[in-house]
Amino acid sequence: MTAADLPSQDQQQYQAFKQLGLKLDMSRGKPSPEQLDLSNALLEAVDGYKAADGTDGRNYGGTVGLPEARALFGELLAVPAAQVVVDSSASLSLMHDVIVYALLNGTPGNVPWVREPVTFLCPVPGYDRHFAICETRGIKMINVPMNDDGPDMDLVEKLVAEDASIKGMWCVPKYSNPGGVVYSDAVVQRLAAMKTAAPDFILMWDDAYRFHHLGAKKLEVQDILKACAAAGNPDRAFVFASSSKVTWAGSGIAALASSPANIAWWTKLAGIRSIGPDKINQLRHVRLLKDLPTVEALMEQHAALLKPKFDAVLAQFEEYLGKVPGVSWTRPQGGYFIDLVTPDGAAKRTVALAKEAGITLTPAGAAFPYGNDPKDRHIRIAPSFPSLDEITQAAQGIALSLRVALA
Amino acid sequence: MTAADLPSQDQQQYQAFKQLGLKLDMSRGKPSPEQLDLSNALLEAVDGYKAADGTDGRNYGGTVGLPEARALFGELLAVPAAQVVVDSSASLSLMHDVIVYALLNGTPGNVPWVREPVTFLCPVPGYDRHFAICETRGIKMINVPMNDDGPDMDLVEKLVAEDASIKGMWCVPKYSNPGGVVYSDAVVQRLAAMKTAAPDFILMWDDAYRFHHLGAKKLEVQDILKACAAAGNPDRAFVFASSSKVTWAGSGIAALASSPANIAWWTKLAGIRSIGPDKINQLRHVRLLKDLPTVEALMEQHAALLKPKFDAVLAQFEEYLGKVPGVSWTRPQGGYFIDLVTPDGAAKRTVALAKEAGITLTPAGAAFPYGNDPKDRHIRIAPSFPSLDEITQAAQGIALSLRVALA
Repeated sequence: MTAADLPSQDQQQYQAFKQLGLKLDMSRGKPSPEQLDLSNALLEAVDGYKAADGTDGRNYGGTVGLPEARALFGELLAVPAAQVVVDSSASLSLMHDVIVYALLNGTPGNVPWVREPVTFLCPVPGYDRHFAICETRGIKMINVPMNDDGPDMDLVEKLVAEDASIKGMWCVPKYSNPGGVVYSDAVVQRLAAMKTAAPDFILMWDDAYRFHHLGAKKLEVQDILKACAAAGNPDRAFVFASSSKVTWAGSGIAALASSPANIAWWTKLAGIRSIGPDKINQLRHVRLLKDLPTVEALMEQHAALLKPKFDAVLAQFEEYLGKVPGVSWTRPQGGYFIDLVTPDGAAKRTVALAKEAGITLTPAGAAFPYGNDPKDRHIRIAPSFPSLDEITQAAQGIALSLRVALA
Repeated sequence: MTAADLPSQDQQQYQAFKQLGLKLDMSRGKPSPEQLDLSNALLEAVDGYKAADGTDGRNYGGTVGLPEARALFGELLAVPAAQVVVDSSASLSLMHDVIVYALLNGTPGNVPWVREPVTFLCPVPGYDRHFAICETRGIKMINVPMNDDGPDMDLVEKLVAEDASIKGMWCVPKYSNPGGVVYSDAVVQRLAAMKTAAPDFILMWDDAYRFHHLGAKKLEVQDILKACAAAGNPDRAFVFASSSKVTWAGSGIAALASSPANIAWWTKLAGIRSIGPDKINQLRHVRLLKDLPTVEALMEQHAALLKPKFDAVLAQFEEYLGKVPGVSWTRPQGGYFIDLVTPDGAAKRTVALAKEAGITLTPAGAAFPYGNDPKDRHIRIAPSFPSLDEITQAAQGIALSLRVALA
């Protein structure tokens, strides 16, 4: 037996970790039970079913949402309530439906997308569920690299100016999934003002983490609707938000904010799909969330639960990966993810090794269109759901998996 | 002044009615507040958020719905729970999405509908919101006359055999909207077995009024899924149901039942749109509705509120229209509507006169594709929402409006 046959220290540590027989699912950005507990008031009895304008919340009607729910999201998003519609759970569904309506009906004043090839720009790494909507509904995707201040705008401007099939672009402007990137004012202004070959180009502005700060520093992103209006492109942006990671991920309410023309368009087309959202759940939420200060106070309680988990992951990575060449990771100031970046070609192998050790991660490549990370470098870490002990162990296991993958 | 200039007795009565200054909206089949009160237990506190299988109802996940919700709708629809998915509110949304997925993705094993012209058969009079989905999403519609036992099957069989663009057909098999028609066994069997030129022809089976009997006689319709399977067309029917007119119209839960292949198809495509339905509302509903006997008992309470209103309308029609030639109306045994049938060319004028007298009805023609009742004969009467006094007055006003329209 030669020295080369002996298991390395990394191998030994990895094998020891495997022996622990853990079973941890870190594949999705799910809130923990403790976070969900923060909104358990939603389980309590509802104090009446009438909205402020007398609407019986139990009956049909009200595609745009209750006035008080629109006012709440108007305040939260700094948009006039008339430019907000509040739907049932899931901003993802609103995004999906905006794209379906654009495909089958066309955006206001424009022809249905479905008649010609459609392409979306996708800053990468990005959110796999955005990309899945495009892939499933027949929309081609083009990767755009993400810089520290948002997508590579030189490339974006060039592509949208040249290619009239580019009808849209996914944007998570704050604490992006998974890189934690915050769009700079310059990026927002360029997105709002850029010349597009397609007259019906839209920004799918997923403001998923608007209030989801991890530290004391509450980063702000410039208002895209105002920027678009100022640049003479008032109908360019559709802004999406929800209470999924404010109250309950499965039973929240969701909002769409946009120009008056876009809101009228959505209302007409969504009114074909449904005779109105769950207005009782809107009442529950309005009574719990009340106003911006109440939401911000609730988000601080979330941060108090989340920050130690992020810190634990970062500490483990620092300890086990700090000196490994070519390995880096993001240190997000908000949102739900850490992007662990490996040397070329090591992400898939790391995820497989972690799986063997009982840690389920988002599949490597998921943060890219078609699940294809061209250099196989990105691993999305979702620290929110496991307990602090579990996440600390898991981060160690992931780090060991990466070290073994690189050996 | 000659006798001919004198206002007729009908005119005098109509004018007197107008003087009452009523303001009644009978345009939609909305449950009354008293009906909604029957489910006010939904306002009470939720006893825990965990499903039977341990799922945390507050979090993401579970596109197919909670096991106990699927079991409940399985029992209600007499289908194995594995062939049922339970979504958030509104079967209309499920119908819309099935059509969208068929357009953009194709039904299992078939190409997307959107590549070629698509046509639906529409038994008339029928449900305006069904037709609005087709019209808005670019699907051509062909009228099929409705007989006493369901759609004219000779014509249906001829059309689907000849025309491969006919991809679907709307069916409300029990207490149809608005005619109250109940499909006979022979009609169900012919729909299940007929040869269609399109290999991907589907039945949109809207079982909206399955439990919505008005009298003691609880009519049954043959099981379409079993009939399709027996006929060798297992994937032909999509069955839709909801609790909208069982509990609350705006905050219910909805179900889709179909073949295993169709359920797998829906689950995959719906999972792109949403990370799961509102499972807390599913728990609320399962705990309230429990099982088939509990639902049937609740529906008897609905019937106790609805039947007097239907009887009042029928009595007024009998009194004011019983001897008017060419006028008839349906006497439904369930559902939410009465179809008032006028002589040719009198429906629009009647609805306009009723409007002048303060009674808002569904627009004449609404029960037909493109809002076009070719003979202008059908007026949909929705007695559920107004109080018994109001509905009695309104029925009189509608009858007087028709008499004046015919004068």
